[in-house]
Amino acid sequence: MTQKPPLYQQISQTIEHHIKTEVLKTGDKLPSLRSICHEYGVSMSTALQSYFLLESKSLIESRPQSGYYVSYAYKHALSAPTTSSPVLTYGMEEIENIIATVSDNAAKSKILFSMGTPALELLPVAKLNKAMLHAMRHLPDSGVFYSHQGNTKLKQQIAKRAMIWGGKLNEHDITTTSGCMDALAFCLIALTTKGDTIVVESPIFFGILQLAKSLGLNIIELPTNAVTGVEIDALKKVLEKKKIKLCLLVSNFSNPVGSCMPTEHKKEVVKLMEKHNVPLIEDDLYGDIYFGNQRPSTCKAFDESGIVLWCGSFSKTLASGYRVGWVAPGKFKEKLDRTKRYHSVSTNTLAHEAIAHFMENDRYDAHLRKLSQTLYSNLQHYLRCIAEYFPAGTRVSKPDGGFILWVELNKNQSSLKLYDQAIQHKINISPGSMYTLQQQYDNCFRLNFGLKWNDKVEAALKLLGKLAHQQKG
Amino acid sequence: MTQKPPLYQQISQTIEHHIKTEVLKTGDKLPSLRSICHEYGVSMSTALQSYFLLESKSLIESRPQSGYYVSYAYKHALSAPTTSSPVLTYGMEEIENIIATVSDNAAKSKILFSMGTPALELLPVAKLNKAMLHAMRHLPDSGVFYSHQGNTKLKQQIAKRAMIWGGKLNEHDITTTSGCMDALAFCLIALTTKGDTIVVESPIFFGILQLAKSLGLNIIELPTNAVTGVEIDALKKVLEKKKIKLCLLVSNFSNPVGSCMPTEHKKEVVKLMEKHNVPLIEDDLYGDIYFGNQRPSTCKAFDESGIVLWCGSFSKTLASGYRVGWVAPGKFKEKLDRTKRYHSVSTNTLAHEAIAHFMENDRYDAHLRKLSQTLYSNLQHYLRCIAEYFPAGTRVSKPDGGFILWVELNKNQSSLKLYDQAIQHKINISPGSMYTLQQQYDNCFRLNFGLKWNDKVEAALKLLGKLAHQQKG
Repeated sequence: MTQKPPLYQQISQTIEHHIKTEVLKTGDKLPSLRSICHEYGVSMSTALQSYFLLESKSLIESRPQSGYYVSYAYKHALSAPTTSSPVLTYGMEEIENIIATVSDNAAKSKILFSMGTPALELLPVAKLNKAMLHAMRHLPDSGVFYSHQGNTKLKQQIAKRAMIWGGKLNEHDITTTSGCMDALAFCLIALTTKGDTIVVESPIFFGILQLAKSLGLNIIELPTNAVTGVEIDALKKVLEKKKIKLCLLVSNFSNPVGSCMPTEHKKEVVKLMEKHNVPLIEDDLYGDIYFGNQRPSTCKAFDESGIVLWCGSFSKTLASGYRVGWVAPGKFKEKLDRTKRYHSVSTNTLAHEAIAHFMENDRYDAHLRKLSQTLYSNLQHYLRCIAEYFPAGTRVSKPDGGFILWVELNKNQSSLKLYDQAIQHKINISPGSMYTLQQQYDNCFRLNFGLKWNDKVEAALKLLGKLAHQQKG
Repeated sequence: MTQKPPLYQQISQTIEHHIKTEVLKTGDKLPSLRSICHEYGVSMSTALQSYFLLESKSLIESRPQSGYYVSYAYKHALSAPTTSSPVLTYGMEEIENIIATVSDNAAKSKILFSMGTPALELLPVAKLNKAMLHAMRHLPDSGVFYSHQGNTKLKQQIAKRAMIWGGKLNEHDITTTSGCMDALAFCLIALTTKGDTIVVESPIFFGILQLAKSLGLNIIELPTNAVTGVEIDALKKVLEKKKIKLCLLVSNFSNPVGSCMPTEHKKEVVKLMEKHNVPLIEDDLYGDIYFGNQRPSTCKAFDESGIVLWCGSFSKTLASGYRVGWVAPGKFKEKLDRTKRYHSVSTNTLAHEAIAHFMENDRYDAHLRKLSQTLYSNLQHYLRCIAEYFPAGTRVSKPDGGFILWVELNKNQSSLKLYDQAIQHKINISPGSMYTLQQQYDNCFRLNFGLKWNDKVEAALKLLGKLAHQQKG
């Protein structure tokens, strides 16, 4: 029995047909999202999803504050990376070695495409210093004492910001942590025991693989679309067939592929979790860095039963060194609070107060707007360079947020080989095989486009392209 | 076969005999440690131990910068709490409830005998603020980026300070953590799995019990002497009879009893650990706050095989809110580093730099001298009040460091009852039953003597004594 595709797919198919038959020509402006809603009688989120899908196929592109256009480059377009299909499982040692190499080489590299944050120039350092000063002056104990309950102001600000994407949270729903990894670790410790099985996307940030493996968990990596994230059917199947303890997904601008789950998928995932009574750890570390007009939603927004543990931090937007993160653990709040208390007693006082103060004064939103604009502009430069300098057939993600690109070379190429050559030129990239426990993705690598754009970065991309060409020939 | 007692016991027996026969009278100055060494042909540490033992029996007292004196109060002396003998095991819920009550009442209490740190007035807040400012200016990124390897300067300072007690460490032996609890958690996570059995002192800080229980570990609580710490014979027996995964001991000024393991015991513990190939987590959280002339040694000092994981922090001496701690994990270094990286990615940058800077400038030692003097003087006030206001038969620890007293009421008295009455007067104490998983110590409670000494504190102690008297009658 063939089902009719969902509405957003029908809409995008229609527009795709118009583009391919040149009813809509390269550079033409597309109808506004509002008029799509009106014309097809659909919701704004459905309209957005249809445009996201077209964008993912490089048929259209969004221009901030302007709208969507038929992509000038669609004829020789860079396709999105293929949907992953993880198969073989292998050990940790292999990826530990690669991670160690990339990390050891970082200090002596000149172009750090492997970085995990935007560059210093993109961060509001002076304002953060001011906020720290304020924290020292403002806290009655200058922050020298434990903060057993966490910073109330910070929790209020996090809850308030969640309203943007429809979050119905208050300060009592939030547990503050020392960064997002700390939050994920507490969630895993609180909800799993050795031998349990969890499911994640593939590829996925290696730190999550390392953490889960070190806790003795079995990890099932699910097929993942570079645009829409985890494949819902695959998730459905695994939940039906296996005893899954929990699910960990990066819902928005995932690391490393940059996928963003459409709102409908988010709803569906939550429904599935509820049906199978499986908790969802939602890692929303990149959600605040978005290039569209609207902050993408979260699974948490559709969580009526408290089954979603929504995690985030300021490490990717403000200061990773401050160690300020959070989790809204739903019905697992008490468990999480206990785990936090047992393992760490308290979070850092001054940094948490500083970030709270920074947010209270709308500095966060102003910074995010600026940061996103810079990153979007960087992304265009990177895409242009990859289209220009890399071999034909190279595929690349075009994330609508974050600062991470996933480049897929041709099948016979090796990013480990590319790594070894690039590092001779002090260019540090992140080989794809770091992002899985299965022997794959060697023809992929991750690029940080949060570096300050300049000729040196362009030259480095050009050189990478040249090395990829040589490898092919 | 009866063995001759160790040298330090023989010496102390001789002096005890002189005191009891009034050859040495109340107030008399005792021979200097140096002359004891000379007279008996023993090492300084043996001489010290013999005096410690006499002190623990309230026969002599040390006066900072002056020497040892026959205790003026020895005829109506407060004895040390009895050596513990834990038996029955019971659940976590009971102690969780007490901990929650004590913690919830803290905010509305006026006299916080339950605090876990010295009072604000005893801490160098202005100088710490300056050190934070320095950190912001000095770090090239103002601390906004991850510090994957930890702060090198801080590690150097910690290693350098370890020389005081004979530690042979360098920066590469140290892993920095977000406080000592973080260090203990990483050690337990790295070295144990669910179902393992560990041994600890009894009574012991409840946070360690909570953490170990939450990790699914079985806990054996060992008999512990209020002066000399864990009973070596008991430790020996348990290591011989049971499969023990690791041992966790607070070697210096333990929480809550304030015991300090004599150097010979420390040596012996390390030998035992080596013999049975059982790692020792040495929690040395209070070792830097000492009232004698010499910083007490550690088990780590005698660790040739790398079996000791020496943990500490600046939470009790400088700023608990900064979250700066460490572990020197011996041969488990790589395991610990991985665990830290997996669970937290990085520690807080600014606070770690600030503490390193504070230490580099000898401010730490100057502060410790001042802090210890104040605490020693406070201790005398507390002991006087307890002798004066509490029922006869009340026993109390007389720690040679730290800021925590363990008071043992008469057998039929209840500290939980005392708690309920004291809290009506906004006095918050820590009931003894929080410090064990076994139903005991209800006739004991813990007092923080790190409060700023004043009439209100004396009045609070007087009131506690009055309530204890009423309970008895």
